[in-house]
Amino acid sequence: MTTTISALSTPKASAAFEETTIERRDLRDDDVRIDIRFAGICHSDIHQARDEWGQGVFPMTPGHEIIGTVSEVGSAVTDHQVGDTVGVGCFVDSCLECEACRDGEEQFCEKGVVQTYSSTGYDGETTHGGYSRQVVVRDHFVLKIPDGVDLAGTTPLLCAGITTYAPLKRHDVGAGTRVGVIGMGGLGHVAVKIAAAMGAEVSVLSRTDAKKDDGLEFGATSYYATEDESVLDDLAGSFDLLVNTVGAAVPLDSFLGLLDRGGRMVNLGAPSESLEVGAFSLLTMRRGVEGSMVGGLPQTQEMLDFCAEHGITATVEVISADQVDDYYDKVVDGEVRYRAVIDAETLGEAPTS
Amino acid sequence: MTTTISALSTPKASAAFEETTIERRDLRDDDVRIDIRFAGICHSDIHQARDEWGQGVFPMTPGHEIIGTVSEVGSAVTDHQVGDTVGVGCFVDSCLECEACRDGEEQFCEKGVVQTYSSTGYDGETTHGGYSRQVVVRDHFVLKIPDGVDLAGTTPLLCAGITTYAPLKRHDVGAGTRVGVIGMGGLGHVAVKIAAAMGAEVSVLSRTDAKKDDGLEFGATSYYATEDESVLDDLAGSFDLLVNTVGAAVPLDSFLGLLDRGGRMVNLGAPSESLEVGAFSLLTMRRGVEGSMVGGLPQTQEMLDFCAEHGITATVEVISADQVDDYYDKVVDGEVRYRAVIDAETLGEAPTS
Repeated sequence: MTTTISALSTPKASAAFEETTIERRDLRDDDVRIDIRFAGICHSDIHQARDEWGQGVFPMTPGHEIIGTVSEVGSAVTDHQVGDTVGVGCFVDSCLECEACRDGEEQFCEKGVVQTYSSTGYDGETTHGGYSRQVVVRDHFVLKIPDGVDLAGTTPLLCAGITTYAPLKRHDVGAGTRVGVIGMGGLGHVAVKIAAAMGAEVSVLSRTDAKKDDGLEFGATSYYATEDESVLDDLAGSFDLLVNTVGAAVPLDSFLGLLDRGGRMVNLGAPSESLEVGAFSLLTMRRGVEGSMVGGLPQTQEMLDFCAEHGITATVEVISADQVDDYYDKVVDGEVRYRAVIDAETLGEAPTS
Repeated sequence: MTTTISALSTPKASAAFEETTIERRDLRDDDVRIDIRFAGICHSDIHQARDEWGQGVFPMTPGHEIIGTVSEVGSAVTDHQVGDTVGVGCFVDSCLECEACRDGEEQFCEKGVVQTYSSTGYDGETTHGGYSRQVVVRDHFVLKIPDGVDLAGTTPLLCAGITTYAPLKRHDVGAGTRVGVIGMGGLGHVAVKIAAAMGAEVSVLSRTDAKKDDGLEFGATSYYATEDESVLDDLAGSFDLLVNTVGAAVPLDSFLGLLDRGGRMVNLGAPSESLEVGAFSLLTMRRGVEGSMVGGLPQTQEMLDFCAEHGITATVEVISADQVDDYYDKVVDGEVRYRAVIDAETLGEAPTS
């Protein structure tokens, strides 16, 4: 037995979304049923729905930034209760036994993490994401949303928040750290807010001046438009950490020159093209380029609590289900200020469970 | 007044070496005059002598791995005495006032470090390196060679030793660290010896099996010939640290897959071509690629003392001055086992100072 739920699905790569239904499983002992309130649109949803990574399973219901209300819990669930406001991020299962899982880095599970959508669960079933009215998720992978936060604005933190918080934490960002955020879209604007709340001296490196007022309002102390290439020369050696949030391949060598001795660039975007880097860009001042990919459950909860404490939410546009196709184009064109969040109530029928 | 000294020089890029003379300056108060005993041939000498980095100053006398005997000291020199056995590495001057210099990372001096050869000193004079009978160096840049070590085998440590020691130290390599050394030439064979002495579990990743016996003798616990590509698949996720000593651009993505969660690849080679890296190679398991470039004076002395204590020398072929051209080709072809060191006594006239 399963429960039939309203959802948005795309039947094949790059096709328009259709209102349809998906099935959610009956609760296992450790499952939580969540009636979805909001689902964010992440740039990676677009990569997946357009099959740019070549791993898409269709029909596809994307969405890995989810906030909703618990409507039912399995018999063994102790951490969550009916009526709780909870969140779900980028993955919904892992082995919980390997070293990565034991270290709270479930995203790197050795058995293979089960992504929130377009992934195959350990039961063999394809997962479906948050562009729907309800989701059933194993309790370990359900986050607590702190009381009193703005739910729509908190929704994108489930991916954009942890993706940016994790590398900032790993690099001990705090008072005096000179952080440059490359690109100020969905990820970037959250990176600015979190880094500023950590006490860092935050600069935005955006292509144009268009978002300057916003950047300064989000907490940046400086804002540079990099379309004027002399800006990069002037900033040589000025940063301890660069957080690259751009989804396309950026000219790494140009940006690596901005790092001071021992500085690090963390790449969060996932362009399908290779990045090119000159050996001298790294040797000189012993710089480095790293990747970072979301974060585990303990750190995601820590991030949600940190953001609640510091009044941080994503700056969002709440949209209806019929606007998703349009907003995909807007995300790619960098026109969303700064994250689109689908109001699940605009999507088909409310769940009856 | 200057002193005329026998030296090997190449008149222009890629030309044969000629026995000639160079001038060494009269001692300043803080200068040390060193009668050279041995000078190592580093792969970067070849890059420079063939002007592959486009920065060569000709005629050029290369050599930045130098051991010799102090024959005279300036009036303000207190750390070195006539008769001492001393070493000189990759650079011979820096401002000693900037943050990098104060941190003992003179190689990253903000005023610009003065390389041992083919560089312009703060006095405007071109520097000339170790392929000569004598050198004059500011005292701060002169290292103490511990008593009792093999001088020819210790000579390459002035570059190959510190270049490999610095990243191993920076990554706290010790018991249990799984270190992979990519390429086992001049740098790589020293990396194996030092990492093994630090207690690491060291694997050699060489193209062929040709150096297997040597690798195991140098302290590696495993040796893999990577010309069989299935080897890289089998080793996925097996290393904490990869030390890439290959002078040419290697396929980074293939090697990054060998790193476990949070693992780092340190690039020591300086190919002129760009390196290509896929964003997913970094995101997955939050891996990173770093550069490292020699090390400062305090750490170079620490490395020399560490190597003396652990009986580590480079494995060298001592050659005469007239063999340098041949050995340049051999180095490029990977035929030297494992570092060529020029016996300065085979070069022109002994200094008469």
